[in-house]
Amino acid sequence: MRKSIATVSLSGSLSEKLTAAAAAGFDGVEIFENDLIASALSPEEVRTRAADLGLAIDLYQPFRDAEAVPEAVLVRNLRRAERKFAVMERLGADTLLVCSSVSPDALDDDALAAESLHRLAARAAEHGVRLAYEALAWGRHVRTYDHAWRIVEAADHPALGVCLDSFHILSRGSDPRGIEDIPGEKIFFLQLADAPRIAMDVLQWSRHYRCFPGQGDFDVTGLVAHTVRAGYAGPLSLEVFNDVFRQGDAARTAVDAMRSLLTLEEAAGIGTPPVPVVPPTGFAFAELVTADTEQPRALLRALGFTRTGRHATKPVDLWQQGAARVLLSSAGGDRRDGATLAALGLETPDQSAAVRRAEALLAPVVPRRRAAGDAPLDAVAAPDGTELFFCRTDAAPGAVDWTHDFPAVPGNTEDGEGGGAAGITRIDHVALPQPWHQFDEASLFYRGVLGLVPDESLDLADPFGLLRSRAVSTADGSLRIALNVAPGPGEREARPQHIAFATDDIVAAARLLHGRGAGLLAIPGNYYDDLAARYELPPERLAELAAWGILYDRDAYGEFHHCYTATVGRVFFEIVQRTGGYRGYGAQNAAVRLAAQHAADGGRPVR
Amino acid sequence: MRKSIATVSLSGSLSEKLTAAAAAGFDGVEIFENDLIASALSPEEVRTRAADLGLAIDLYQPFRDAEAVPEAVLVRNLRRAERKFAVMERLGADTLLVCSSVSPDALDDDALAAESLHRLAARAAEHGVRLAYEALAWGRHVRTYDHAWRIVEAADHPALGVCLDSFHILSRGSDPRGIEDIPGEKIFFLQLADAPRIAMDVLQWSRHYRCFPGQGDFDVTGLVAHTVRAGYAGPLSLEVFNDVFRQGDAARTAVDAMRSLLTLEEAAGIGTPPVPVVPPTGFAFAELVTADTEQPRALLRALGFTRTGRHATKPVDLWQQGAARVLLSSAGGDRRDGATLAALGLETPDQSAAVRRAEALLAPVVPRRRAAGDAPLDAVAAPDGTELFFCRTDAAPGAVDWTHDFPAVPGNTEDGEGGGAAGITRIDHVALPQPWHQFDEASLFYRGVLGLVPDESLDLADPFGLLRSRAVSTADGSLRIALNVAPGPGEREARPQHIAFATDDIVAAARLLHGRGAGLLAIPGNYYDDLAARYELPPERLAELAAWGILYDRDAYGEFHHCYTATVGRVFFEIVQRTGGYRGYGAQNAAVRLAAQHAADGGRPVR
Repeated sequence: MRKSIATVSLSGSLSEKLTAAAAAGFDGVEIFENDLIASALSPEEVRTRAADLGLAIDLYQPFRDAEAVPEAVLVRNLRRAERKFAVMERLGADTLLVCSSVSPDALDDDALAAESLHRLAARAAEHGVRLAYEALAWGRHVRTYDHAWRIVEAADHPALGVCLDSFHILSRGSDPRGIEDIPGEKIFFLQLADAPRIAMDVLQWSRHYRCFPGQGDFDVTGLVAHTVRAGYAGPLSLEVFNDVFRQGDAARTAVDAMRSLLTLEEAAGIGTPPVPVVPPTGFAFAELVTADTEQPRALLRALGFTRTGRHATKPVDLWQQGAARVLLSSAGGDRRDGATLAALGLETPDQSAAVRRAEALLAPVVPRRRAAGDAPLDAVAAPDGTELFFCRTDAAPGAVDWTHDFPAVPGNTEDGEGGGAAGITRIDHVALPQPWHQFDEASLFYRGVLGLVPDESLDLADPFGLLRSRAVSTADGSLRIALNVAPGPGEREARPQHIAFATDDIVAAARLLHGRGAGLLAIPGNYYDDLAARYELPPERLAELAAWGILYDRDAYGEFHHCYTATVGRVFFEIVQRTGGYRGYGAQNAAVRLAAQHAADGGRPVR
Repeated sequence: MRKSIATVSLSGSLSEKLTAAAAAGFDGVEIFENDLIASALSPEEVRTRAADLGLAIDLYQPFRDAEAVPEAVLVRNLRRAERKFAVMERLGADTLLVCSSVSPDALDDDALAAESLHRLAARAAEHGVRLAYEALAWGRHVRTYDHAWRIVEAADHPALGVCLDSFHILSRGSDPRGIEDIPGEKIFFLQLADAPRIAMDVLQWSRHYRCFPGQGDFDVTGLVAHTVRAGYAGPLSLEVFNDVFRQGDAARTAVDAMRSLLTLEEAAGIGTPPVPVVPPTGFAFAELVTADTEQPRALLRALGFTRTGRHATKPVDLWQQGAARVLLSSAGGDRRDGATLAALGLETPDQSAAVRRAEALLAPVVPRRRAAGDAPLDAVAAPDGTELFFCRTDAAPGAVDWTHDFPAVPGNTEDGEGGGAAGITRIDHVALPQPWHQFDEASLFYRGVLGLVPDESLDLADPFGLLRSRAVSTADGSLRIALNVAPGPGEREARPQHIAFATDDIVAAARLLHGRGAGLLAIPGNYYDDLAARYELPPERLAELAAWGILYDRDAYGEFHHCYTATVGRVFFEIVQRTGGYRGYGAQNAAVRLAAQHAADGGRPVR
């Protein structure tokens, strides 16, 4: 279906908004009146600009407080509307959004509302303009789409139809099935927005917390399906007011918006579906980049990793323990940051389909710098810049195994099996702090591009602010990524990343690491006093956890033990042991871990 | 009365929180359990640290989900409580906050609740601990303070009383007069927090939007008065969870908190009142500081100002037009920022009382660098660093007039009456962008220190985010300051400041300025098309406004016309004309002005 976006969804000047919408592949825009009023471009110039960019002006919006008013007020409103029809003729826009009145002047009188809309529509028709009447969730008398439709039906004018808006409908809990009772040709426009479920004043909710479909909690897909079944054939148009988008980069927001519509069309079974998603089956590797590899090498050795290979043509080493693989690269990397988690290898059954899927969903493909003979590793960039490589390990004969690019290094080096393995079996999860403006974009990206399932959003207390955290994972938990976001833009965006390794015996692992001087994070004794109060753990078990700085959590499915290394550059490691199907990430303990890191950091003295 | 603060109200480690509370003059703290758990200090070390700082540990909090549960659960809860009593003995804390249960295990049975609290209190008493039972606004069965009191009364144990919390009481709209029915000695603790009126889920509201008394919309003063009348003699204790404070500087937040309690005591008529407030009666001057005065001088000349004096000992010029005075200083100033509005002179009838008031409310006094013979100008620093000078112009004989420090300069210089006055009569208002973390602090500062009245908070749309704006002013409008804040920390905090000059004929002023090439901000034609639709202004009037780039607004009291100069450094000027008692600042037009400045800025191309 045709795809539109309201200019209010994007930041910048009107001209910048049009450019961004066109670049992301939109077919049209809704022009938000305030954007035009504040623009230095005349309506004729906006019309030309849009045409040059290949954008239709699908809607001009909004016209407020029009209907169900005493005659004298209606006469003023008709006069006001004439001014707007004139602007629309100059713009070349033929549909005007009329939203249900919020004015104290409005009377609770459907017949009067219908009559005034009929008169307005008659005037509009003279200018070649159609009116799309929309029920605002906080309208004075008209708040539901079916009520708006009854009034439109009674007004009975060919230039009058309804505008449906998923936010206004779903925020009030209206049943969208009734949309199918409206004749498709009387649905003049469809605006889409999602939102997280927050119990708050619906006007504030709408103004600040709307998000793109797939980023919130509403069933926007279902609503679209009902509307299409009703016979609607107009554009799917995104109208999202959001404090984050207002500040973000318009070009980037427009791509996020388009990805949302593509995913929505696929879910609703409309439009041309993209290549089906190819979910990864696990982590092939995590890649650390650093100008100076000394510190991470020492830590990997202490953790029981062995350097098993070196890239044939690049300064990249493969470190391995069980099925946990870490690439350590000294190519690139910012000396100031130290080690950074720059890339993830995703085990992917069908690499070429995965790349096509990612491209169809507008994921930027990372330019490949590949020497002859290297395995064809394809990568796309996640919203935070992390490179995601689609690859296969231990591939069947004939297929390409990326580890072949890392011939074995001679044994018995200092990076060999000196310490011995510590029982690490695989990468359990990675945690990636996200730029503040890109948190919702990231969760939609991982869902749309990789088919990962987003978990619920959690607030974690840090000594200097709340962190929001949301995990995305495969259904079977074989691949988990925890996305974290700082409390505000510009604040501490350079929070550490981490890689969590799984083990089947965390006490043995912690004991080994302590013995090798791996520097596990010290956990305060007060934490164990509280653990003793909260859970009836045997005293000797508690003493053991305290001795090694192991944190504990449980959920309805099982138990979780975890401990942390010191931070090296931007990265630290976690060792985790899941038992009995525990599903979380130890969020309960995050405040203690963050405070302990703050203390260890020494940035500010704790003692 | 004694003053306390909960550690959860401050950022950082527990040790940092204690230091900040003591430095701001608090007598005690409530220790939030999670702060202790995450601390590397043992309870004994915390006790010693607090004692060294002169802080009592007035409360340990919270103990959750204790009461009205089946026997087996209660036995577990008693065991859990014993662990906490042991921690409290080590801490030297004798009062534990018990908040009403939110657990699904809790039964709706007041008799059972009373019985379980009685048993808990009996155990507590063995450890010398008292329990303060508090109704959480979102408790499962107990949500109001009178309900909590009925249960405490029925439990009838000397170690059991109630804790009152202004947020929980006022957020639910409970009538605080009933507090006077509780015997004072059974009110074990009083926690204070304010909040803006937001219609949202009360738990989220409480967790993220609490603020200090005087910064929100609740009548905390009235609640305190009722509690004191009931006979309560314990501490006034601030318990404020807030996303801003969590990120702010603990020392600064603690001072803001103490200022809130001092203002509250004064309003409630308890404690020792500070020196009465001395509200200013107008602006004596606004001072611009810049390393290079060329651009602001040219603009002041074009605006019709005359250089009438130069400071006897400093490189500071006095520019004047009517009763509008601008100081232009080339001492200091950051070359990169250009001109900055660094100080305001406030007409003050009793300077010495004003300074004593400011000091009593913890306003930092600006060190004076005064030459012999200079008028004794006393200044304090506002939260954003703006210096506020208490001074008098045209003082009665015997009193000191600050303008005497600016002897007249020889006439006929290039800065003389070349252009001629443009009808500017006085400074109408100044607008000061605030650092994100200090917006609420600033409005409380101006209210407490200067007796200014805060206006309601408004959201203004900028091309790159919403701006929050709140004005503070004297009751008669003789002095007005608009405080603005960027949408997030770190974002565009260096927004321009501005000075608005009043005139009685804005068209004449604008015509003059245009003629002198003062470069008024260009306002888009679309704005005037919309003005024509919104108001029935005569066409010739509209044409005149459009010709000079004058914006228009009206309210219930009168009309407002205003226009803007170009920005010089961090500062621009506004010319305003108020007629018929208009009270606002043209907020309606802010989005157009901001977009026009964005376009003029050329930072990003508009065309």
